[in-house]
Amino acid sequence: MSLSVVATIDGMRRTLAPLRREGKVIGLVPTMGALHAGHGRLMELARRETDCVVVSVFVNPTQFNDQQDYAKYPRTLPRDVEFCQALGAELVFAPDAAEMYPQPATSFVEVAGVSERLCGEFRPGHFRGVATVVAKLFHIVQPDRAYFGEKDAQQLAVIRRMVRDLDIPVTVVGVPTVREPDGLALSSRNQRLSPEERSLAPAVYRTLQRIRSRIADGAGDPREIRQDAVAELERVPGMRVEYLEIVDPEEMRPVGRIEGPVLAAAAVWLGSTRLIDNQLCAPANASPSGRLPPEKALRRPTK
Amino acid sequence: MSLSVVATIDGMRRTLAPLRREGKVIGLVPTMGALHAGHGRLMELARRETDCVVVSVFVNPTQFNDQQDYAKYPRTLPRDVEFCQALGAELVFAPDAAEMYPQPATSFVEVAGVSERLCGEFRPGHFRGVATVVAKLFHIVQPDRAYFGEKDAQQLAVIRRMVRDLDIPVTVVGVPTVREPDGLALSSRNQRLSPEERSLAPAVYRTLQRIRSRIADGAGDPREIRQDAVAELERVPGMRVEYLEIVDPEEMRPVGRIEGPVLAAAAVWLGSTRLIDNQLCAPANASPSGRLPPEKALRRPTK
Repeated sequence: MSLSVVATIDGMRRTLAPLRREGKVIGLVPTMGALHAGHGRLMELARRETDCVVVSVFVNPTQFNDQQDYAKYPRTLPRDVEFCQALGAELVFAPDAAEMYPQPATSFVEVAGVSERLCGEFRPGHFRGVATVVAKLFHIVQPDRAYFGEKDAQQLAVIRRMVRDLDIPVTVVGVPTVREPDGLALSSRNQRLSPEERSLAPAVYRTLQRIRSRIADGAGDPREIRQDAVAELERVPGMRVEYLEIVDPEEMRPVGRIEGPVLAAAAVWLGSTRLIDNQLCAPANASPSGRLPPEKALRRPTK
Repeated sequence: MSLSVVATIDGMRRTLAPLRREGKVIGLVPTMGALHAGHGRLMELARRETDCVVVSVFVNPTQFNDQQDYAKYPRTLPRDVEFCQALGAELVFAPDAAEMYPQPATSFVEVAGVSERLCGEFRPGHFRGVATVVAKLFHIVQPDRAYFGEKDAQQLAVIRRMVRDLDIPVTVVGVPTVREPDGLALSSRNQRLSPEERSLAPAVYRTLQRIRSRIADGAGDPREIRQDAVAELERVPGMRVEYLEIVDPEEMRPVGRIEGPVLAAAAVWLGSTRLIDNQLCAPANASPSGRLPPEKALRRPTK
């Protein structure tokens, strides 16, 4: 099956219905486009685990709290389609905003708690927009499996929580962050960095790695670790720390004392570009894996 | 196929998956039990239109703003199962609260606007609870069609809006209110009326009918109609009007002037029992039907 680009919800349903009837396992990779190797990794995994890979490309207005950010978010659909084709995806769902929101949206999915911290604090309404559009995509595509990058750890936690609480019949798969050789996490926003900013950006990764080492070596006081790390980042010319927190990896609640696996999560501004990254950390005696914990499969959707 | 009772979400998924694979059309009748002929009408229609009728029986704690009301809501599962069997339903889904909410719910579906008026004003959080549990039931059962009574007109409007906004692949079917010979709308709460209250209860229907006649005869000022109707109801011994409004049938917004079809909707207390009812009304020159407008089928889910 070669790649098709579909712009309408009806078109998606019509295209997918026969595949579903044949018992094909459908994988969804939700994106906002400007695809890079991080998305590529999601697609590769989806291709291995499912029979039909659907990539959605939609810059969702309702998750932008800043309209300028929305306006300048990179849009590169023709290149994105080529990219999906090269990676063997079957379908690109590329609706416009009028298709996804034919009337002012009045129904929202709210995920309390985990949505309110970190990015949620600085981007009010952001995760409500994310949860709502992902619920819509789940209803339109009805995937068996959906793939999200661990770079957006809080987004992943919000979606896992939504899926569990609302009994959405989909398996959420988290995929490790892909990085540049110098450690910078791949992000569509990296395109906006000036060459100088780009050369400074890996400081975020290095600081998170340093936190990881300290915690592995037994440092247990998150306040001390946090202070040092913020000071380190603020020394980078033009870098401003929005937040840097040591939180529990599921609820994203700041921990008082590090006694098990924690997530070090940061958002920084470099000039007018906002970058986020995170690192799972654990004391030497705790979980040795550098991965986020898998979804607690309270219930596995039955096909 | 004889009737099965299933208490778990996993059990539902396992039972329905093979039916779905065979291409069976699945109908869902969501209820809180204490089934009566109103529910029976929903089931009969579902039976005519689908291959497999699922009746959910779940007294949903999150839609009760008053814990006493939740505690005393009638629970009659054995009789309900018998009733479903007699009406030819295939499946009763009867989970307990721990099955539906294994952990404190943190994800909610909010339908702004239409949820906030009428019952929403007097029962804060009610429609959030309703929308969320119905979304869960839709995700668990994945019905092709779902049936709701027009007696709960605002609930029906909230669910239609949710389904449309969130692209849930289900057709929502509204079914006309079933009434006692004296006009009282069937409701599980009617059981709680004393014999004297029961004899007074049809006043609500009669008042709504009077409103309908006045509007058909050309009365255009909702304030005047409303005032007379409230006065009429308040003359009934023991009856207290919670609200009585003339609203547009889709958004439930009070209208300033009656120029097309409107909904007259009321909630009254009779002693400690709350009763609701509504009546679609139209000036003689407008839509002649006494039915709620059908769902605007912006998109019809494809099987």
